[in-house]
Amino acid sequence: MNMEMPSYTTQEEVMFFDTDIGGVVHNLAYLRMIETCRTKLATECLGLDLKQMANSGLFPVVLRTEVDYRSPATLGHKLSIKGKLDRVEKVRFWCAFEIYAEGIDKCLVTCRQSLAMVQMRNDGKSGKPQRLPQEWRDRWA
Amino acid sequence: MNMEMPSYTTQEEVMFFDTDIGGVVHNLAYLRMIETCRTKLATECLGLDLKQMANSGLFPVVLRTEVDYRSPATLGHKLSIKGKLDRVEKVRFWCAFEIYAEGIDKCLVTCRQSLAMVQMRNDGKSGKPQRLPQEWRDRWA
Amino acid sequence: MNMEMPSYTTQEEVMFFDTDIGGVVHNLAYLRMIETCRTKLATECLGLDLKQMANSGLFPVVLRTEVDYRSPATLGHKLSIKGKLDRVEKVRFWCAFEIYAEGIDKCLVTCRQSLAMVQMRNDGKSGKPQRLPQEWRDRWA
Amino acid sequence: MNMEMPSYTTQEEVMFFDTDIGGVVHNLAYLRMIETCRTKLATECLGLDLKQMANSGLFPVVLRTEVDYRSPATLGHKLSIKGKLDRVEKVRFWCAFEIYAEGIDKCLVTCRQSLAMVQMRNDGKSGKPQRLPQEWRDRWA
Repeated sequence: MNMEMPSYTTQEEVMFFDTDIGGVVHNLAYLRMIETCRTKLATECLGLDLKQMANSGLFPVVLRTEVDYRSPATLGHKLSIKGKLDRVEKVRFWCAFEIYAEGIDKCLVTCRQSLAMVQMRNDGKSGKPQRLPQEWRDRWA
Repeated sequence: MNMEMPSYTTQEEVMFFDTDIGGVVHNLAYLRMIETCRTKLATECLGLDLKQMANSGLFPVVLRTEVDYRSPATLGHKLSIKGKLDRVEKVRFWCAFEIYAEGIDKCLVTCRQSLAMVQMRNDGKSGKPQRLPQEWRDRWA
Repeated sequence: MNMEMPSYTTQEEVMFFDTDIGGVVHNLAYLRMIETCRTKLATECLGLDLKQMANSGLFPVVLRTEVDYRSPATLGHKLSIKGKLDRVEKVRFWCAFEIYAEGIDKCLVTCRQSLAMVQMRNDGKSGKPQRLPQEWRDRWA
Repeated sequence: MNMEMPSYTTQEEVMFFDTDIGGVVHNLAYLRMIETCRTKLATECLGLDLKQMANSGLFPVVLRTEVDYRSPATLGHKLSIKGKLDRVEKVRFWCAFEIYAEGIDKCLVTCRQSLAMVQMRNDGKSGKPQRLPQEWRDRWA
């Protein structure tokens, strides 16, 4: 890991709505937890502000997700979702995530996502991705 | 039932993401299915149009939900969600729903919801509920 | 409020997946947050244990939800979900919830839910609701 | 496309709960729709039966998802989710998906997922992935 890349860890406890009839956490529930981690990473470390986004309509949009489900968690597990900024390009940036459970000695889920900042339009169409802030590229590219 | 009130039935098959570790459909999944039925009732029977809503920002907003979970369904059950307009007031309207599963001889879920048409604002605040169309009140009040 | 009834408050920050095209929190997202609060109330105050439930198949099942949506929250709002045990009967118990947002001076959502403890069966059918623990009824009925 | 590989198409209409404050379909909603398509592909074309799974505890488990979000859809769009079996190995199989919207002339979302059949255990732990049925490997490997 590049020690200077911003990182953020969120905590979640597995709830009933996270599980399915197989008795373990459903694959989509991990991606919801990863979105929470990614959003906190953006607001706490990258300077994005949720209320400002809501007003401006300039939102981070997921372009690609790669996720590997390695080992299951179940009801009541306490999960740590560890996220970091992984790479900054001209328009896209990549985040990487690892999920761990208290009492389990291995990584449960790994994930990489690329995103871009897109100016959403009122008509429900999305405009073009914007160039990332020069400051991001100076610090992390 | 008032035979002249508009009604609409949707079909759903219970998927993994609808179930939880208890082995049956999660209580929130039924409400997602009810939203689909309610939206189809609105577009097919009440003259509301989803794309027009997206453009105008005038949306039906749920004010109250009452739901009784009477008997469970599980993975693979084929469900019918039967919705109808139940009552039209000056600003609010009520819908009622019943959910049945193929091969089960009783009603699984009953639900009532009241809604209003609200003009959403760009700043994420909601304006005042609007008076319902006179035509609705003439026909169904 | 009965000061002696157990209560528990959870915190949530509104994420993208909690909102919809109307620009505010979707009605189902509040019920997911209420489930988290209710589950923490059960584990922290009522002596229920999630891992034990997963093993025994004895789960709290929602019988009825009544929820009133009074005022909207949006992206980035910090919410407090205040839950309490409201009433204990022979088989059913009721919980009550209020949701507040930082910086908004009124209650956004109120909700009541009744539940029972049900022994789930392996075939995806649910058995009969069980009588609540005598200790609950002694302390809170 | 290999013309002999089994394929299945599902239809969905974009609902409020599928959208977020950005005004378009949320990235997780497409994956829920893909799960529905994948489950129908499994039951209609691969001979898997949901009720039998619920009874036996032998479930298809997602090992990896790769998804590219190319263009957005919004409220009211009618979507086609086209799924096919893409590749059969000894233990893993791959499915591929493409999502289209009525009135939009390009592919919105592409996705590949690998899965295995895993015998779930009552204690919420998952056992080892099973070898795929010989018949699958004879026909599609």
